[in-house]
Amino acid sequence: MKHLQQPELSWRAASGDFVHQWVKPLGEDAADMVLYGAPLSRSSISVSGASLYPLEFRKMWKGFSSYNLDEDLDLSGYAVRDAGDIAMHTTDILLSHERIEETTRELVSAFDTATTCLIGGDHSVTACAVRGVKRAFPTERIGILQLDTHLDVRDPVELGPANGTPIRQLIDGGTVRGEDVVNIGLHGYFNAKPLVAYAREQGIRMVTLRKARELGVAQCVMNKLSLLAEKVDRVYVTIDMDVLDIAVAPGVPASTPGGMSAEELFQSLLRIGQHNAVRHIDFVCLDPTRDAASNATVKTGVYAWLEFITGRVLREKL
Amino acid sequence: MKHLQQPELSWRAASGDFVHQWVKPLGEDAADMVLYGAPLSRSSISVSGASLYPLEFRKMWKGFSSYNLDEDLDLSGYAVRDAGDIAMHTTDILLSHERIEETTRELVSAFDTATTCLIGGDHSVTACAVRGVKRAFPTERIGILQLDTHLDVRDPVELGPANGTPIRQLIDGGTVRGEDVVNIGLHGYFNAKPLVAYAREQGIRMVTLRKARELGVAQCVMNKLSLLAEKVDRVYVTIDMDVLDIAVAPGVPASTPGGMSAEELFQSLLRIGQHNAVRHIDFVCLDPTRDAASNATVKTGVYAWLEFITGRVLREKL
Amino acid sequence: MKHLQQPELSWRAASGDFVHQWVKPLGEDAADMVLYGAPLSRSSISVSGASLYPLEFRKMWKGFSSYNLDEDLDLSGYAVRDAGDIAMHTTDILLSHERIEETTRELVSAFDTATTCLIGGDHSVTACAVRGVKRAFPTERIGILQLDTHLDVRDPVELGPANGTPIRQLIDGGTVRGEDVVNIGLHGYFNAKPLVAYAREQGIRMVTLRKARELGVAQCVMNKLSLLAEKVDRVYVTIDMDVLDIAVAPGVPASTPGGMSAEELFQSLLRIGQHNAVRHIDFVCLDPTRDAASNATVKTGVYAWLEFITGRVLREKL
Amino acid sequence: MKHLQQPELSWRAASGDFVHQWVKPLGEDAADMVLYGAPLSRSSISVSGASLYPLEFRKMWKGFSSYNLDEDLDLSGYAVRDAGDIAMHTTDILLSHERIEETTRELVSAFDTATTCLIGGDHSVTACAVRGVKRAFPTERIGILQLDTHLDVRDPVELGPANGTPIRQLIDGGTVRGEDVVNIGLHGYFNAKPLVAYAREQGIRMVTLRKARELGVAQCVMNKLSLLAEKVDRVYVTIDMDVLDIAVAPGVPASTPGGMSAEELFQSLLRIGQHNAVRHIDFVCLDPTRDAASNATVKTGVYAWLEFITGRVLREKL
Amino acid sequence: MKHLQQPELSWRAASGDFVHQWVKPLGEDAADMVLYGAPLSRSSISVSGASLYPLEFRKMWKGFSSYNLDEDLDLSGYAVRDAGDIAMHTTDILLSHERIEETTRELVSAFDTATTCLIGGDHSVTACAVRGVKRAFPTERIGILQLDTHLDVRDPVELGPANGTPIRQLIDGGTVRGEDVVNIGLHGYFNAKPLVAYAREQGIRMVTLRKARELGVAQCVMNKLSLLAEKVDRVYVTIDMDVLDIAVAPGVPASTPGGMSAEELFQSLLRIGQHNAVRHIDFVCLDPTRDAASNATVKTGVYAWLEFITGRVLREKL
Amino acid sequence: MKHLQQPELSWRAASGDFVHQWVKPLGEDAADMVLYGAPLSRSSISVSGASLYPLEFRKMWKGFSSYNLDEDLDLSGYAVRDAGDIAMHTTDILLSHERIEETTRELVSAFDTATTCLIGGDHSVTACAVRGVKRAFPTERIGILQLDTHLDVRDPVELGPANGTPIRQLIDGGTVRGEDVVNIGLHGYFNAKPLVAYAREQGIRMVTLRKARELGVAQCVMNKLSLLAEKVDRVYVTIDMDVLDIAVAPGVPASTPGGMSAEELFQSLLRIGQHNAVRHIDFVCLDPTRDAASNATVKTGVYAWLEFITGRVLREKL
Repeated sequence: MKHLQQPELSWRAASGDFVHQWVKPLGEDAADMVLYGAPLSRSSISVSGASLYPLEFRKMWKGFSSYNLDEDLDLSGYAVRDAGDIAMHTTDILLSHERIEETTRELVSAFDTATTCLIGGDHSVTACAVRGVKRAFPTERIGILQLDTHLDVRDPVELGPANGTPIRQLIDGGTVRGEDVVNIGLHGYFNAKPLVAYAREQGIRMVTLRKARELGVAQCVMNKLSLLAEKVDRVYVTIDMDVLDIAVAPGVPASTPGGMSAEELFQSLLRIGQHNAVRHIDFVCLDPTRDAASNATVKTGVYAWLEFITGRVLREKL
Repeated sequence: MKHLQQPELSWRAASGDFVHQWVKPLGEDAADMVLYGAPLSRSSISVSGASLYPLEFRKMWKGFSSYNLDEDLDLSGYAVRDAGDIAMHTTDILLSHERIEETTRELVSAFDTATTCLIGGDHSVTACAVRGVKRAFPTERIGILQLDTHLDVRDPVELGPANGTPIRQLIDGGTVRGEDVVNIGLHGYFNAKPLVAYAREQGIRMVTLRKARELGVAQCVMNKLSLLAEKVDRVYVTIDMDVLDIAVAPGVPASTPGGMSAEELFQSLLRIGQHNAVRHIDFVCLDPTRDAASNATVKTGVYAWLEFITGRVLREKL
Repeated sequence: MKHLQQPELSWRAASGDFVHQWVKPLGEDAADMVLYGAPLSRSSISVSGASLYPLEFRKMWKGFSSYNLDEDLDLSGYAVRDAGDIAMHTTDILLSHERIEETTRELVSAFDTATTCLIGGDHSVTACAVRGVKRAFPTERIGILQLDTHLDVRDPVELGPANGTPIRQLIDGGTVRGEDVVNIGLHGYFNAKPLVAYAREQGIRMVTLRKARELGVAQCVMNKLSLLAEKVDRVYVTIDMDVLDIAVAPGVPASTPGGMSAEELFQSLLRIGQHNAVRHIDFVCLDPTRDAASNATVKTGVYAWLEFITGRVLREKL
Repeated sequence: MKHLQQPELSWRAASGDFVHQWVKPLGEDAADMVLYGAPLSRSSISVSGASLYPLEFRKMWKGFSSYNLDEDLDLSGYAVRDAGDIAMHTTDILLSHERIEETTRELVSAFDTATTCLIGGDHSVTACAVRGVKRAFPTERIGILQLDTHLDVRDPVELGPANGTPIRQLIDGGTVRGEDVVNIGLHGYFNAKPLVAYAREQGIRMVTLRKARELGVAQCVMNKLSLLAEKVDRVYVTIDMDVLDIAVAPGVPASTPGGMSAEELFQSLLRIGQHNAVRHIDFVCLDPTRDAASNATVKTGVYAWLEFITGRVLREKL
Repeated sequence: MKHLQQPELSWRAASGDFVHQWVKPLGEDAADMVLYGAPLSRSSISVSGASLYPLEFRKMWKGFSSYNLDEDLDLSGYAVRDAGDIAMHTTDILLSHERIEETTRELVSAFDTATTCLIGGDHSVTACAVRGVKRAFPTERIGILQLDTHLDVRDPVELGPANGTPIRQLIDGGTVRGEDVVNIGLHGYFNAKPLVAYAREQGIRMVTLRKARELGVAQCVMNKLSLLAEKVDRVYVTIDMDVLDIAVAPGVPASTPGGMSAEELFQSLLRIGQHNAVRHIDFVCLDPTRDAASNATVKTGVYAWLEFITGRVLREKL
Repeated sequence: MKHLQQPELSWRAASGDFVHQWVKPLGEDAADMVLYGAPLSRSSISVSGASLYPLEFRKMWKGFSSYNLDEDLDLSGYAVRDAGDIAMHTTDILLSHERIEETTRELVSAFDTATTCLIGGDHSVTACAVRGVKRAFPTERIGILQLDTHLDVRDPVELGPANGTPIRQLIDGGTVRGEDVVNIGLHGYFNAKPLVAYAREQGIRMVTLRKARELGVAQCVMNKLSLLAEKVDRVYVTIDMDVLDIAVAPGVPASTPGGMSAEELFQSLLRIGQHNAVRHIDFVCLDPTRDAASNATVKTGVYAWLEFITGRVLREKL
């Protein structure tokens, strides 16, 4: 019966040239990047299946090589270690949030030299993760680089810690200063006036997409990141995938016309990955249940993550 | 400018022959049926947009006449009054559940002679509603007639009050006796063995669909309902739309092959509506975001509700 | 270059065992059935692409054999001749209607011994076609057998000759007597009370689907058809495909839950085809742009038409 | 029962920061923009549901803030007044066209200082609207700025006043001179040679998209608009949404590859809005029934309209 | 980091109440059923993704309990062992076919007391599998029970061993006698006349669906199976999923209107499973890439397989 | 019956301004371009319906004018002659490949002065076609210009002549030298490291998309084409449609994020068409069954082909 073989596991394999063969479970050995998922989206204001993204993200790995042809760069020497997903409670959202915070604290403490990468989930997970980082390094000043169509400063007093509120939670809670938040990608008619007023009061650095394009989005991101890095101890990057244009990201319910192109995001992440101040990153709000039949958005999510890793590897080669 | 007209409001109108013209907001006048919605589905174990059903249900009214051709019956004299939706909290599921319970208690107390009809939402709302009824009539014995593919007796200790647990919540909480629960529509491979064991221990009356079909589903429902009515003071009917076959209910994520036909559900509801012991009904777990392009499932949901109302009207004419 | 071949024309071929090889263009030779299309749906009250059905109907022929396995019957000896489509005007609906009436008059006159089969288009075409038949045979009394979820007796004074009005046009216009119209398939909540009142006043024979099912739909159709045939000179059959249940006919915008099964329609058409009084038939309101990816509805439309033809052939063999 | 609330009306609300809370019904008070819809698409050569756009356009308002972040501009002081939709006849297209013409005449006369904005419907409505403007201001010379993939100069003698003919109707009818029509966005293989020849003869200014991109589309639009404004008394702008690339406008049946990007259209409308000569605008040919599941095209339609309004507001601030 | 967990493998797990926890890889221990896949569909005449079914079939297991509620039967004691998939060559179809034949021969020889279950793939795999059985038991007479809309007796001389030819391959090749083939489910217009003639000549037992329904499909299947079992040594059952109606099996490209209901198939398999003569079964032609968004067809495929297993278990209990 | 007309054949017509009226079947008269199809995709590693593209490509012709508005150029004088499709065997892939090779040899020999254009099918057809050209002109040195996201140098020893292998087949088989292959459009993470190593060893000219964009894709293509033309006798151009970004080419299963825009491809083909060294072209890997509802990808395929033809015509005018 030599022709029989057990079907390949769908998102992890022993060895080879593809991403699912390169990424290993988190273990005792050294890690350059610690990857973990927060499959939570019942905290989303509108219906969201972003809780399914961590698994779909991994399943898509087998469609990607660990070799970057643009940079002629083999990524496989960079040790990405997958810590798995944080167990979410079915109905107790606050408990789920606490677990994200606590697990982030543990991971960033235990793997201090590694980059941590959180796969959401909706944007509420970012507030938890940044609080976890703060608890691990209470004396450090944390900056946030946010690529997003929205400010995410809605009022948690009204909504609870929902996906529209993370930046406000962190500012009002004293975890991060408003002036240490840089948001690039804002555009159009998707932030109500009072929210913009709040952002102004708090000193959030807002850069509209049209303004960023004057210099080139990636270059603008670099400049803002450098300015931010001068005043904070570490930078947490949060990529709300709704920053992408609706035509390229149908699988992000809050994406809009007039958003960022995939190439602009990719180039930006390539630069972000190279910056030493960046220590943590998350990717949030991608809902695989809404994706196009071609899985275009999930593929774009994996591609974006690999561009960030390429940046990390290039940084080490410098 | 005589040709200009403001576009019709999408789901309510002043007068005419259609359902959106017949149903009125709940006010001071007498009501035969009090309708209210619980737009909650973040308590669902898997991703669900059933929170959107109360609104989509109402929007579909304009596609239905208030005249039943099968029975040659004008329903418009039956006073359906729409109390609107219960305000759900964005992140505090327990608070949302408390509001459903409290609002149900208020409504069934205030409109004791009316039939109440709750539009979910996921199946977790049923536990809240039945507790609300119990609090309004603490000395009465409540029976439950459940049309469902599942027993919904998963353990709330593990999951919290999620959508797979309502019947167990009610039995373990002492609100309803197991022997006073009748479940018709069970079939196939969708209930794990330990759950069936629990149901047996508690004395839940389980009727598989194949068994029900031997007599005819509607007739079987009548027989079981009559038996139930003999021992309880009032019957609460809960229709989990996943009892329908997956081919007729694509918009119910948990629907399965081998389920009930639409006609079997319609005929059953026609009979249920005629039974005096029935005082409350809910329709749950229909997720409009998954519906077919033809909106077949939402249409089926409205049709089912009208069949129940037809039964109510026929009862009065006897 | 012996391996090169021009791609097969999509819906007609020279010879062979399939429907597109059997049906020939209308020519000088004798015809058992004259087929013609009325690609008109801009007369539809709601948006409809039923104008595309005549072409999609023909394209689907190549998926069907001309041999009926159920009856062990070769249909290919029955001469179906395709007269093509009536040219419709882009913006002048009345002119298009006149052309349908005039062309029908010409065809039924010229091919008096043949059965004519009109492929719509929306239901407005039926009024034109029946008037055309009447003009060809002004002294004959015409009966209509209608399988439909709706009465189609809305007021043309208000809407013009739209798709909801054909039966009323014919009655009010004196072409057909109300008592000579039999409608089978009515059900549920899809006809406003005043329309039912009109139908009653005019003596339209209304048979609900539930009533028809008591005897069996096909048997009921036969009985009603025989009664009708006793008092009229010829019967025109109109099949509004919305008589089918929404689960089997997603490509008919007005189809509803609780409708006819495909098998009930097929068996009915098998019997209708065998009745001598039936001289004309149409199939209307199938919108291919709404069909399922599997083309289920268009396939059902072709199947239904072949069942009618099977009936015709069986009739001749008796 | 304090938790109960009537569900929000889907596309209009009393007050707040979103578009559906800002736009008010047309009344006695002053209007900066008068908005009206022409829900007509049965005049379309191919099947179209563009008649549904006026309502879907309004329903999407609640997803847009009245604050423009790019320009740091609060639009809510600009009085947009919604006159509703023109009642269309079900089957009499010419009558519907007359009503558009007459209503436009009335509106532009009564609100002479306001900008009028017509939401189609298919492109046939533009001919009616421009004739209405002409009748209101018979001595004025009207220029047309058209963003379109097509010339829309097919022959109404052949088709009637269908959606491919409006510009030719206006030129042949003497309402507008060919030389006063500027079409920007033409490209590729979507205009037959004889139509281009007609356009040349009539002196229509044709600017292909590739040519416009040499300068930048928005800048090119400004230049052409300024030239046009020098010779006419008022400019009517018509935006056929099929000017957009098929990848960004799946909901426009006639959109093509090689079309305009959303950002090019947005930037163009921002400039158009600022030009004093522009007095009227329409948006046509968007068919919501064909839109992507993400509603990308309807969202793009609302965004485009807001960019035009932003231009209007910026004009007033100068 | 106690909250972290590696994501569950998608289609197999250690223990529990669901199918993916019950089925084990084929090993040294005894097997009641040996399951194996043939992921081949490039031998399909029309484009097919049925090669993806073996994996999708397994992935769906976690949605099914190993407890049958209809029969109150725990299946988990029945040892289903998964041998995995046969390695298919990318371009050499004949080599792939040989591997299916050879592997089947090996499996049925090595596990003679077990039932073997092959998951296709397109219908060409059946010819290979039956030849493999014949080679293992050359002196035995093999009968075939086929549930299918088609005869599958097209000529392999013309097409090669494609999916329309398996039964003819087996008859012409002397593996099976025509009289030992029973086909139930044939209907309508989907078999060309010459194919029916071939079937007649070869003595294939053809039972149309309408004929089968006179007795009840499951009962008819039993009767025919008993007759077949009297004359052959072992029965190979092949379920072409296109026997199902197109409304219930959108994911089978060749399914048609007028086909079998899911319940008819389920009940038939329940009986087939109980028959001692049945030793081998396959399920073919389900293409997951065409399935409905609800995965209705894949779910139906798993359900059908479990009904067969239920029959097997019931047989042992007798 | 003057209003009756036979429905237009779907993809070819006698005369007029559209592409289906311009292209004629290959006959005795002179041809500028010989078009032929290879409807083969069962050689694809993953499931593909690219075999359906040749027919869908032709059906889309009627949506395109033969007049290029960008260049003010009437293409209709350029004699495109359609040789039809090569007959593919149902199960013998090697035989199908031989027919492609042989037919290409015949066509390029017989129509030496014409450009040949092959419509695939998957990318395996390119190896066959280039071998056919080589056999026709054995002493000539053939260069390949490949626009592709992938290198297509997987090992045919392992896979057989599948769609991932054509370039390697040609190099290893001695038909083309590695140094004579130019691949433009490579990007990201879609080529495993060993394949890139092979390409380097063989001297394949690899130009990543980002590198090409530095100069402009079309200009870069021209430069590379000119360099290639200096050393070879004739250039064969192969356009793998997966070079396009996944957002613009949903109908190409292997398309990815970060790919070429439609406009970049169009402009490149406009230049390629003008180069004298180019004698053959193919378009492969477009799977119409995966296309968006708007048919965006098939439309883009036809547009791309017309841009190449425009280049050809411009070349002749120089």
